[in-house]
Amino acid sequence: MSKTNIIEKFESFAEHWSPRLIAECNGQHVRIAKVQGEFIWHTHEDADELFMVVKGHLTIRLRAGDVTLNENELFVVPRGVEHMPVAEQECWIMLFEPADTLNTGDQRSERTVTKIERI
Amino acid sequence: MSKTNIIEKFESFAEHWSPRLIAECNGQHVRIAKVQGEFIWHTHEDADELFMVVKGHLTIRLRAGDVTLNENELFVVPRGVEHMPVAEQECWIMLFEPADTLNTGDQRSERTVTKIERI
Repeated sequence: MSKTNIIEKFESFAEHWSPRLIAECNGQHVRIAKVQGEFIWHTHEDADELFMVVKGHLTIRLRAGDVTLNENELFVVPRGVEHMPVAEQECWIMLFEPADTLNTGDQRSERTVTKIERI
Repeated sequence: MSKTNIIEKFESFAEHWSPRLIAECNGQHVRIAKVQGEFIWHTHEDADELFMVVKGHLTIRLRAGDVTLNENELFVVPRGVEHMPVAEQECWIMLFEPADTLNTGDQRSERTVTKIERI
């Protein structure tokens, strides 16, 4: 049992679109990621996904319209809702989702991370 | 579906030890609370509880020793572990826990909040 400094965790890696696991809680993962550019359209059929911006700005494209998150803002993409995260500049995000959630949801691509590293 | 600004939510209430619900995700609650002073010793038998400090400093007393969290630090109190949060000065915290988690766990007191307000 030890505490986790979120900023130090972000500073420990550089890759974009490569989520790291920083905490687990009731079968849910707390993940962090650095993102920049466009991700891919995908859906998590059985999982809500919470996005929180720690630094920068993140746009979550939805078929119904865009949601742009600034620092200290969060948004829950409900299960089954297609979405594509986009960040013009590097953005630091925190994610809450079930431990078995795949970053690319129903899509498989070179973006898919099958093994989340715990840091 | 709309985004949530965490800071604005904190600024919308003043009471201490009175958690507010700001988001739900996979049966889990994202709650925020302003705290100051000592809470009470309690245990959540069936729920891990994640504490994250947004502003200030929070000490989580555990029978095994204290954990002090500063801004942007988080700690998961595993289910079944007795704990008492304490803050010398007002501290803003975010919590992740199952939707049915009672703030005072196995203890009932005037501190118990049976109905969490959604803001």
